[in-house]
Amino acid sequence: MPITGENFIGFSRSAKGTRCLRAVDPTTGASLPEAFCAATDEEIEAAMASAQAALAAYGRLGGSAKARFLRAIADDLQALGDELVERAVRETALPPARIQGERGRTVGQLHLFADLIAEGSWCEASIVTADPDRKPLPRPDLRRMLAPMGPVLVFAASNFPLAFSTAGGDTASALAGGNPVIVKAHSSHPGTSELVASAIVGAARRTGMPEGVFAMLFGEGHTVGQRLIGHPVIKAAAFTGSQSAGRTLLDLANRRPQPIPFFAEMGSLNPVLLLPEALKRRGREIARDFAASVTLGCGQFCTKPGLLIARKADGLEVFIEELRACLARIPPVSMLNPKIHAAFRAARRKALDQAGVRCGAVSAVDAEPGAHEGQPTLATVAAEDFRRNPVLQEEVFGPYTLLVCCDDDDQLREVVKTLDGQLTATVIAEEDELGPYHEVIDRLGATSGRLIHNGIPTGVEVCAAMQHGGPYPAASDARFTSVGSAAIKRFVRPVCYQNWPSALLPEALQDGNPLAIWRMVDDQLTRDAV
Amino acid sequence: MPITGENFIGFSRSAKGTRCLRAVDPTTGASLPEAFCAATDEEIEAAMASAQAALAAYGRLGGSAKARFLRAIADDLQALGDELVERAVRETALPPARIQGERGRTVGQLHLFADLIAEGSWCEASIVTADPDRKPLPRPDLRRMLAPMGPVLVFAASNFPLAFSTAGGDTASALAGGNPVIVKAHSSHPGTSELVASAIVGAARRTGMPEGVFAMLFGEGHTVGQRLIGHPVIKAAAFTGSQSAGRTLLDLANRRPQPIPFFAEMGSLNPVLLLPEALKRRGREIARDFAASVTLGCGQFCTKPGLLIARKADGLEVFIEELRACLARIPPVSMLNPKIHAAFRAARRKALDQAGVRCGAVSAVDAEPGAHEGQPTLATVAAEDFRRNPVLQEEVFGPYTLLVCCDDDDQLREVVKTLDGQLTATVIAEEDELGPYHEVIDRLGATSGRLIHNGIPTGVEVCAAMQHGGPYPAASDARFTSVGSAAIKRFVRPVCYQNWPSALLPEALQDGNPLAIWRMVDDQLTRDAV
Repeated sequence: MPITGENFIGFSRSAKGTRCLRAVDPTTGASLPEAFCAATDEEIEAAMASAQAALAAYGRLGGSAKARFLRAIADDLQALGDELVERAVRETALPPARIQGERGRTVGQLHLFADLIAEGSWCEASIVTADPDRKPLPRPDLRRMLAPMGPVLVFAASNFPLAFSTAGGDTASALAGGNPVIVKAHSSHPGTSELVASAIVGAARRTGMPEGVFAMLFGEGHTVGQRLIGHPVIKAAAFTGSQSAGRTLLDLANRRPQPIPFFAEMGSLNPVLLLPEALKRRGREIARDFAASVTLGCGQFCTKPGLLIARKADGLEVFIEELRACLARIPPVSMLNPKIHAAFRAARRKALDQAGVRCGAVSAVDAEPGAHEGQPTLATVAAEDFRRNPVLQEEVFGPYTLLVCCDDDDQLREVVKTLDGQLTATVIAEEDELGPYHEVIDRLGATSGRLIHNGIPTGVEVCAAMQHGGPYPAASDARFTSVGSAAIKRFVRPVCYQNWPSALLPEALQDGNPLAIWRMVDDQLTRDAV
Repeated sequence: MPITGENFIGFSRSAKGTRCLRAVDPTTGASLPEAFCAATDEEIEAAMASAQAALAAYGRLGGSAKARFLRAIADDLQALGDELVERAVRETALPPARIQGERGRTVGQLHLFADLIAEGSWCEASIVTADPDRKPLPRPDLRRMLAPMGPVLVFAASNFPLAFSTAGGDTASALAGGNPVIVKAHSSHPGTSELVASAIVGAARRTGMPEGVFAMLFGEGHTVGQRLIGHPVIKAAAFTGSQSAGRTLLDLANRRPQPIPFFAEMGSLNPVLLLPEALKRRGREIARDFAASVTLGCGQFCTKPGLLIARKADGLEVFIEELRACLARIPPVSMLNPKIHAAFRAARRKALDQAGVRCGAVSAVDAEPGAHEGQPTLATVAAEDFRRNPVLQEEVFGPYTLLVCCDDDDQLREVVKTLDGQLTATVIAEEDELGPYHEVIDRLGATSGRLIHNGIPTGVEVCAAMQHGGPYPAASDARFTSVGSAAIKRFVRPVCYQNWPSALLPEALQDGNPLAIWRMVDDQLTRDAV
């Protein structure tokens, strides 16, 4: 499929602007040949008008029709075959196997949301029947369900060119909820984005979706992106990226004349508590697992364990020794783009320059000059130095982790108390040593979205029970998740129908329960008719 | 019970400040004798520290223990008897029957949330069991449920001295979710607030709740209130009141270093579409219902129908004539406080001064001088004048409504298109005339939280199926409701446990399902054990 660099507006393509973007091969720093045309104001307006026009027709579609659309996207993504993989590899320097795996996840997510809406119970239908004889006042008939919010803006992420980009989890969940989607393509992988957007538009045409159900615009975040978030047609938005970019967009969303829900997933230190007995019994194995987790995808996961907290005890030296040895053996690889590489180098340098921080290990393999490679790095610091220094709580996005050494359990408790909101918190421990740490674990639970026992935080399962989000600054609103089927809840809102004529009610709320979904009827969960 | 005017901090009372507030009898404008001591910075810090200290213990309590606490509050509210009713009547000028009814609703809400958490399924337990054989990677065991967010700040409302104040829906839902609550008492009914707070503290002591589970502070919104919303201990907040106060607090919540969820319910025009056939067949009856709804509680409900939209047709003149006659017969009564009365007079004057707006009717009974009475008022305006003038979309809080007369269905559609987010939208119509209005009704649905057919918007049923909220500016976040059992969702967040030792899991997630709640287990809704 030839790459044209045009924006996707409704079922048309458009390139009216004069500003162009080019992807960069991170392994060389050289620009790739194709030019992508930044959306003009006129094109933005056209995309918005098209999304607004599609809202009523798309929002009214039944779950099975929307599910067909999502499954068609999944099929068309698969059908892109090697072309997609090769393009994504060129634009991100991620290995082909990773891109293939990520495509599998992306396809899986689309099917997960298709299953969810085809089944239908996700809409939380709740019915309270009328009671005309109630005193002092009769009770009306009330029926409530989740409904679309309106056009959703999705900011594609750099670190998941498929699973959190054009047809990623945000797009899938917004479409599943009945909302037209406008994607702001990530400038780091525009060609990948164009291939995927073509698949979405093809699927939309094939399954008879209204034009305007999907649009994708190219442009820089601080121009096109900021203009999009302020547009009155947009009713909700999602973002995955850095804390600074996330906060900027969140503030813009909040300062609108009509503020909109903005879900930003902004990364995290993902602290890991290493308890003594576990280190003593299986310190080497744990070190190997964490060396792999820290450097997976060159440390460019939001769930990368960036902070290890351990108490000085028998097993700690062995653990550190093994972690050093493992990291020394892992070669540096190219990061997602030169900007991320530069940011990694700066953040790593800044962290290593803080008082009391020592470089504990680096990869023994030198980085290739000009290849924008991230050097696997372990730093160490004493608990007191960590506690005193908020700089050490800033995420270093890349293959870097900081080990905080505590003299005793009191220091360990104090270190945990200083932590901000996190996506994940991990406890590596034998079950029989957890007793004295309940308070610490409660505290970790109170500040994170996912609590892991004896595992690594990287690897986020896409399922109904996942929580990927957490107290600020891990995410902008801890009440939602950006991964798993519950992610749909970000983009829907309840609507209540009072004494509404049965024939005009959405099927989910009709007396006969034609969708055969689970509903709460007069305080009983049931699939029966009313 | 003697009223002391002291703040409630943990189980203690405190009055260290020098600034005092007094309630005002709205029927005379005279200050009531009791002085209420505005909380000092030191007292605010003490309340925050106490709430923070209570969080872990209270959040860990099972549903039945928290339910006992809520039911004890309900009992103690009832036990306050006539003293509470008399005080509330003096401070708000609402009639005793209304206060008694509101106490019934408040008690009912507490029992509703008690039932919800005693039953337990509200926490949305979701379990995906491990699959060690899955390829390419094993699937971990994942278990997700809703958990407390942390101390919740509740701003009491002026117009519901019981049901949306100290022990009102916000407090009940936040406590039900496992969060300590700090109430900012409303300066308009501090004595009522003190009586209710005493009941809450008594109930907390009697049922063995941790000290700090509840606090109540006196003070002005722009000093104490704004300080509270910025405090780092507060993790969420709720507010019911005007758009200007709501937006000010929302902006403060959003601009915190760590923004917090802030649910503001800010009122609404509650548009009513009056279709011709219904007006023709039962215009007089409809007029009588709406005259009563507009003036109920002196128009001081957030669901007061403030906008009637009708097409010129046979029945309209008869409807207007009857509405005029009804409003003329309804005497003015004292509003909640002199400030609200002054605001009503100013907003009514401003609306009546707009181009094309005519005063269609007022109460034939003169207002009592100095009694701060709101004069029931009907204004009329042509569709074109309404559409051109955003001032006419500003809520006039009080017994005022505006009838927009449309020449034809096209004008009617255009009027509906101009509407902002609403709490409710009502359609008065015979079922067989709805056909041509589907687009208009879709539009009303897209901008409101509750769609009513042939009813009045006042009277908000407290139940599982209620939605009281809507797109901005009706509420700050349309994804939540402030009335009904789903209101608990504002103050809880999901937490996921991965491969967590079974004995350490919350009961809701344990294999055996000891709470016998509904759970989603591997995509099946079930009450069975895993």
